Amino acid sequence: MKKNTKHSINPAARQQIKQRKTLKVEEYIQGILAKNRIVLSRAITLIESTRSDHHEMAQKIIAACLPHTGASVRVGVTGTPGVGKSTFIEALGKYVTDAQHRIAVLAIDPTSQVTRGSILGDKTRMAALATNPNAFIRPSAAGDSLGGVARKTREAIVLCEAAGYDVILVETVGVGQSETAVHSMVDFFLLLLLPGAGDELQGIKRGIVEMADLIAVNKADKDKVKLADQAKREYKNALHLYPPKSSGWIPEVLTCSALEGTGISDIWQSIQGYKTEMKKNNFWSENRQQQAKFWLYESIKNDLYHSFFSNKNIKNALSRVESDVAVGQLSPFKGAEELMQLFLRTNSH
Amino acid sequence: MKKNTKHSINPAARQQIKQRKTLKVEEYIQGILAKNRIVLSRAITLIESTRSDHHEMAQKIIAACLPHTGASVRVGVTGTPGVGKSTFIEALGKYVTDAQHRIAVLAIDPTSQVTRGSILGDKTRMAALATNPNAFIRPSAAGDSLGGVARKTREAIVLCEAAGYDVILVETVGVGQSETAVHSMVDFFLLLLLPGAGDELQGIKRGIVEMADLIAVNKADKDKVKLADQAKREYKNALHLYPPKSSGWIPEVLTCSALEGTGISDIWQSIQGYKTEMKKNNFWSENRQQQAKFWLYESIKNDLYHSFFSNKNIKNALSRVESDVAVGQLSPFKGAEELMQLFLRTNSH
Repeated sequence: MKKNTKHSINPAARQQIKQRKTLKVEEYIQGILAKNRIVLSRAITLIESTRSDHHEMAQKIIAACLPHTGASVRVGVTGTPGVGKSTFIEALGKYVTDAQHRIAVLAIDPTSQVTRGSILGDKTRMAALATNPNAFIRPSAAGDSLGGVARKTREAIVLCEAAGYDVILVETVGVGQSETAVHSMVDFFLLLLLPGAGDELQGIKRGIVEMADLIAVNKADKDKVKLADQAKREYKNALHLYPPKSSGWIPEVLTCSALEGTGISDIWQSIQGYKTEMKKNNFWSENRQQQAKFWLYESIKNDLYHSFFSNKNIKNALSRVESDVAVGQLSPFKGAEELMQLFLRTNSH
Repeated sequence: MKKNTKHSINPAARQQIKQRKTLKVEEYIQGILAKNRIVLSRAITLIESTRSDHHEMAQKIIAACLPHTGASVRVGVTGTPGVGKSTFIEALGKYVTDAQHRIAVLAIDPTSQVTRGSILGDKTRMAALATNPNAFIRPSAAGDSLGGVARKTREAIVLCEAAGYDVILVETVGVGQSETAVHSMVDFFLLLLLPGAGDELQGIKRGIVEMADLIAVNKADKDKVKLADQAKREYKNALHLYPPKSSGWIPEVLTCSALEGTGISDIWQSIQGYKTEMKKNNFWSENRQQQAKFWLYESIKNDLYHSFFSNKNIKNALSRVESDVAVGQLSPFKGAEELMQLFLRTNSH
């Protein structure tokens, strides 16, 4: 059996696609639905582009992909640097692809604004998974704001699902507001912790612990099993102090060694158990609906801002208003009102 | 000497003002500048009104008051319930009015949306200060959002300063996001804590401790002086763990007994010392300029939202878009774009 039967576009045509700068919208859509990774990758690049023609194309592609989405499980993974996230993702990726799933690994990294993709920037970080034909790895988009980066990731999820990936993993760093963004686009939120760091939960922001559907104590390697079990008990006790989740789900604490491949199947079982239970009590679809609405309102906010501050008349007036406000000649509230009137008068021209 | 010489409006005229439902804008302005507390109070009511004609009047009054503001010191006071905030404010109020200052006490209470003014709602809470002719006490405004309540308080500061209050105290509860709002409108931020609660700093959000220019350990009453001194040392050590402030100011930890009136003068000295130092290094005015700009951008955000969601066409289309997005027929981002186009096309009619 040929390795590439899944790709309906033949190698010669693929080569052609690789060379042409921009495909047509139809070609993107066909390529994605045909599970062509190169086309998928280039469509995500379109999503990440700041050019308005690219933006329009991307929106058409997303609209065409939407009917082919939704059947996946979307998992958020967070944990502070050093917890072994890449190794964990490799281990989980191997496990699910062995079980005939197809996994897409995306990332939201707010620091990528500065470093242009610090996490997942290097695919060699997950060398084995990167060459796995049933895995697709994409570094975090760069952007001016967390909101922008998050939006691009959420749009990339749509394309990945349309391309047949049924496990979507969104990785983030365990330090900032990015967890909230990830939490608002995944079904299941997994927090990776280390054994032996007794008061580690205190280092993790309370809000992040509250989001977790599962805490996995990683690096429970052979010589650290005892330590990991102790940490597991401690985290379990700590979780009792948190309010019950609106899903009704009681978060588990499990141990694993991503390095040795142990405990990974239990984690996957927990995710599957969550899916079954949440589909039964309807939280699964309700949550996804809530998330979609959340992104609608986030986008409205974002678009309003963009439309206001890119308005030519606002650009001209803003610095005068700003300095009048700064020196106290104009109330900030009155200043905002004046700008608003200008905006509403002129934005339709 | 007559008690009311400060009020240039005679008692008969005042009585008339009291009875008339609405004054003219000019009467408000004159009354405020003449230090008439009744007029000031009613002007703040105008600020708090949701009627658009009241809003317009309020903006005119604020604009006329602005040139008469800025000479005060604005102090934010926070602390969890039970820390003795009212008693402290009474003690500080007595101290500064004895020293020929005039103090206005305002409040931001996010819970007032529900309870219609839970903190400072009852002036008898500060009975002595409430009857002091050189003190003005105003409960927190109610509102739909913290942003709205905060805006009203910031506008009230303008009027109070124009009415000759040179010490503005903005009180809030030590539990939520309201501290950030208060911090963005005051020069000096004071955190009240209790003695004996060793790990109390951990109960206070890290962000709130970071904002503090002074920690005052209250209830250092005679029998608790030792306990308070110990808490003072502990808090002082804990402060070392916080990053240096951009103002260059090193926050002090002091003890006081609001009940017995001890330690209040040291706290006032610290505030005065801060003012002197910050005026020297220019942080005082730079900070106020930054705050004004912050409120300009907050207001733009707020006004944009209001103008969008009160647009008739948006109101009509929103529920359809929302449900299309919820069921996954429409991408949230595309949905937002459609609404934006509708908004930009129709808001000038």
